[in-house]
Amino acid sequence: LIAEGIAGLFQSDILSGVRVVITAGPTREAIDPVRYISNHSSGKMGFALATAAMEAGARVTLIRGPVNLPDPDRIQCLRVESARDMLEASLQQLGECDIFIAAAAVADYRPLQTADQKIKKSAASDTLELTLVKNPDIVATVAGHEQRPFTVGFAAETQDVENYARHKLQQKNLDIIVANDVSRSDIGFNSDENAVTVFWQQSQQAFGQMSKTTLARELVRLIAQRYRAATE
Amino acid sequence: LIAEGIAGLFQSDILSGVRVVITAGPTREAIDPVRYISNHSSGKMGFALATAAMEAGARVTLIRGPVNLPDPDRIQCLRVESARDMLEASLQQLGECDIFIAAAAVADYRPLQTADQKIKKSAASDTLELTLVKNPDIVATVAGHEQRPFTVGFAAETQDVENYARHKLQQKNLDIIVANDVSRSDIGFNSDENAVTVFWQQSQQAFGQMSKTTLARELVRLIAQRYRAATE
Repeated sequence: LIAEGIAGLFQSDILSGVRVVITAGPTREAIDPVRYISNHSSGKMGFALATAAMEAGARVTLIRGPVNLPDPDRIQCLRVESARDMLEASLQQLGECDIFIAAAAVADYRPLQTADQKIKKSAASDTLELTLVKNPDIVATVAGHEQRPFTVGFAAETQDVENYARHKLQQKNLDIIVANDVSRSDIGFNSDENAVTVFWQQSQQAFGQMSKTTLARELVRLIAQRYRAATE
Repeated sequence: LIAEGIAGLFQSDILSGVRVVITAGPTREAIDPVRYISNHSSGKMGFALATAAMEAGARVTLIRGPVNLPDPDRIQCLRVESARDMLEASLQQLGECDIFIAAAAVADYRPLQTADQKIKKSAASDTLELTLVKNPDIVATVAGHEQRPFTVGFAAETQDVENYARHKLQQKNLDIIVANDVSRSDIGFNSDENAVTVFWQQSQQAFGQMSKTTLARELVRLIAQRYRAATE
């Protein structure tokens, strides 16, 4: 216990030799060359997890959507825009991935068609119908893959957080799901702080409001514990 | 001519005592609490214009959409999200506005309805129909206002640039329109450089590729000339 406490104060080796792939940020789904659909993810949580995993000894690959953050030191970074780009990059990493952490806020839907030219405003009509189609579910695709890594998902909800999170844990065949309530404006997307509850098959653990850096270290510790329990 | 050249090398007073309002950046149109429609505007051109106008002696108000740039020194900054927010802020400035420069890339359309809760993926259907409605045309509203300032619009086009620009100049009753071809990836939205052609009733002027800072100074000089010609 003392050793565990001290390890927590300094850099640790709880993920030494483990290959971790993390997705972060939003995706952007093009409507035309200038317009897109996206979401408010800042990427801060995913980037903090990447740094925390690296500090814990892991070899980290960060698949980053369009965010305004510099590539973290000593982490391989791959830049993607759309959900389909992110899925492709994720699948390409599976041969060298022990733990997959899907922290990105992937767009659930994309426009059915992407226009080659900027869509002009129509004088004839005051409305425009946009047909959206479901994007591939990246974390569920990874968790269902024959080269399945230990898979950690995220759930950003605005209501009924535990029910939705436990449902996604089962339905997507995840090992762990990290749920946060994005209806709270003081934490989450554009904040430097967050508060989450982590669910897995046997139990759950709540983390009160703290900096994303500190929370990332706590989450990496928990993920490492569950990963060791699952693979030993 | 010599005096004009020297003035161009240093800070000048070509807009001394003139009140300039500039919009910059994209707008974001909420689909629900987490998702939105936006566009690739970085805000760099509008911010550069604000600084150039301030350096030329103007009292500048910058109405800024969501971009990742610090507020420029000595410029009053107003932060807005949606096109309707930006219109409201613009109209509130008209009592103290001599020149209005609409550099923002305002979303032409917004979702008809904004959901209070995050829209859940439906298992029943693989598609989602999103009905968009036209946003107010901010620059046309300003140019048609009874307190009409000297009004400068922008046109971001991917094809047939001159025709669309001249059409907008007439249709929206603008004094000047600044057109750029956003289909070129080396300039424009996320670049630090730009190349534009400026159209007004009597003539036009092309500006070859240069830094947005330099281009902003050139544009401010041209706008000041046309403003003086229109008001003297």
